[in-house]
Amino acid sequence: MDFDRFFQSQLQRLHDDGSYRVFADLERKQGLYPLATRHAANGSNDVTVWCSNDYLGMGQHPKVLAAMKAAIECCGAGSGGTRNISGTSHYHVALERELAELHGKDSALLFTSGYVANWATLGTLGARIPGLIIFSDASNHASMIEGIRYAGCAKAIWRHNDLRDLEAKLAAANPTSPKLIAFESVYSMDGDIAPIKEICDLADKYGAMTYLDEVHAVGVYGPRGGGIAEREGLMERLTVIEGTLAKAFGVMGGYIAASRQLCDFVRSFASGFIFTTSLPPSLAAGAIASIQHLKTNSSERVRHQESVRRIRVQLNRYGLPHLENPSHIVPFIVGDAAKCKWISDILLEDFHVYLQPINYPTVPKGTERLRITPNPTHSEADITHLVNALRSLWSNCALARGVA
Amino acid sequence: MDFDRFFQSQLQRLHDDGSYRVFADLERKQGLYPLATRHAANGSNDVTVWCSNDYLGMGQHPKVLAAMKAAIECCGAGSGGTRNISGTSHYHVALERELAELHGKDSALLFTSGYVANWATLGTLGARIPGLIIFSDASNHASMIEGIRYAGCAKAIWRHNDLRDLEAKLAAANPTSPKLIAFESVYSMDGDIAPIKEICDLADKYGAMTYLDEVHAVGVYGPRGGGIAEREGLMERLTVIEGTLAKAFGVMGGYIAASRQLCDFVRSFASGFIFTTSLPPSLAAGAIASIQHLKTNSSERVRHQESVRRIRVQLNRYGLPHLENPSHIVPFIVGDAAKCKWISDILLEDFHVYLQPINYPTVPKGTERLRITPNPTHSEADITHLVNALRSLWSNCALARGVA
Repeated sequence: MDFDRFFQSQLQRLHDDGSYRVFADLERKQGLYPLATRHAANGSNDVTVWCSNDYLGMGQHPKVLAAMKAAIECCGAGSGGTRNISGTSHYHVALERELAELHGKDSALLFTSGYVANWATLGTLGARIPGLIIFSDASNHASMIEGIRYAGCAKAIWRHNDLRDLEAKLAAANPTSPKLIAFESVYSMDGDIAPIKEICDLADKYGAMTYLDEVHAVGVYGPRGGGIAEREGLMERLTVIEGTLAKAFGVMGGYIAASRQLCDFVRSFASGFIFTTSLPPSLAAGAIASIQHLKTNSSERVRHQESVRRIRVQLNRYGLPHLENPSHIVPFIVGDAAKCKWISDILLEDFHVYLQPINYPTVPKGTERLRITPNPTHSEADITHLVNALRSLWSNCALARGVA
Repeated sequence: MDFDRFFQSQLQRLHDDGSYRVFADLERKQGLYPLATRHAANGSNDVTVWCSNDYLGMGQHPKVLAAMKAAIECCGAGSGGTRNISGTSHYHVALERELAELHGKDSALLFTSGYVANWATLGTLGARIPGLIIFSDASNHASMIEGIRYAGCAKAIWRHNDLRDLEAKLAAANPTSPKLIAFESVYSMDGDIAPIKEICDLADKYGAMTYLDEVHAVGVYGPRGGGIAEREGLMERLTVIEGTLAKAFGVMGGYIAASRQLCDFVRSFASGFIFTTSLPPSLAAGAIASIQHLKTNSSERVRHQESVRRIRVQLNRYGLPHLENPSHIVPFIVGDAAKCKWISDILLEDFHVYLQPINYPTVPKGTERLRITPNPTHSEADITHLVNALRSLWSNCALARGVA
């Protein structure tokens, strides 16, 4: 078999339907974010980033950078091992305490990424609790789906954010089976928010654990950045809160916060936790600085919501089609992979606006979009420039306005 | 169901058989490595680390630290997104070029860890090449096993490093089925090395791809740190070389190096690559500095091998039981989880030597060990101190000498 030829033929299909991904080669300009230098074959130029998950600009916060550099100076580059074999630094221990405190839990457990946190935790709980049934929201992230698949346990997929369907599935299950409801607070691509309280009520009624992915909410919501569950006073009702250090906290890594026993159980049995080098101390140090700052300062959150509001007002003024939702994610729906890429390419080349096309498998085919993520660092002029660029392209685009 | 009670009962079993893991809380002392401060409930003290995978001490190399700090100064903390959505920095692009060049391949692809590199690559190849059979060495790392399991494809497990068994299994398979042989060069826990050339010969004979995990060899072997395959002039015979940035290169992250088409295929289809935030630019920058240094300097490798030789000589002099092998890993076999932990605890408390007990599931039950990883930074005095400590403990230990 000619393997490379096989690979090429599979890649050709992506080229054919417009979903082949080309990564923009960027150099963020610390201190001037959302500005970045974009490198391309024909040279370099500055662009304004409009699609980052560094929602609050904490990736350039002086406290975060100072903490990272100090940790490098103190302890060096990598951790040198798995958590068990020489790879637990004092920063890891302190960060886990900080995260437990943030979410009002006994313990927290760090992973190398949010993806691994979801995959390893759901995978371990599902595989090791005899008879567990996982009730999974249909729109859960790939990492949760893979974790549940890994577990090999019974599962029930309930319609996205549909309490009636969730309850029907809980009621239909064996009452004596242990149960876990897995869902997210802010859904990344549509920006809608789960009815957390009502899901917890159902969990209580049917004796289920709850697993809430807050990766798009931690740092961004709640008076101390604890997420939607903090904002709504619900943290103590959740069995597991899962989060990331790589979005609003501006660094890298994932975690769960839960009871001492649950964290220790996952720590002791999860392959994806045990057999991998831990995060570098400098990342843990940066994350601590970021979390501590956001626990006691709301100015980034306030300015962030202001940017979100301002861009929505301008998009509405010109009838530019974006999904309304109660979060900070502004999905500009195009609905076609090739057109989405065309708009994105021109935004980049002609307007120096970087807004990556989002296509399959990240979103279903037919719902391709530009996912706008306003930042406290976007100026009024940045917003006006983006909206004018979108207006100009949208009027040239074959799609009618207002379709979404 | 009382979930916490269930978790506690499962954890109690680990306590009962001595395999419950307690992580040492360490603060490495940059510039003074292998020295670290160990934090404990009863205070802090300095210890000598003897079990790190920062094999060459590159985690404290001034070039690496300077590159990391410069990247933080230039671009900030995190990457802010997945590789596709604003998370490709100029450093990622440069690092992938550096890695491709190191291994003599067209392309390379970065992952957040070596674990994810193995899991995602083997999982994607096995799931997406119709009819693929993966021939997996019985001692392959957990991450490779999980990748093959994820793939759901046909597999054949061949006896560890046993060419006859591998050939028997290749010969028994359908000649028209596509095939992949997955193995490691240096096996982490026993330190033995695969017969790479002979495995490549069998791959040619049966038309199989080869996938070689070199995580314990990159940086450490070969005139430019390309691993065992480089040392033996075999790199071009391997379809995929997988490596890590978190061991000898001293930072964090994993990668594959392979043909342009294979890397692009994995890049385009692997869930564990697509749906996760990319490495921070500072880690990529540190890795580039480390790789470039080790491509052109052999002094760390020379001093490393010298440390390995010296400790073996001393262990042999006193009949202390270690596995002989052709690598830099010196496994001191104890064969009992509780005794292994007892020795490790006393080494730490009384001798200020940090040598983590390695137990199940990292090694099979009955082969518990102390895994000594000599470093170029270990002095003659460090070696003598360790060996004297082991002599004193070993003579007090109920186990006879020379059992391994």
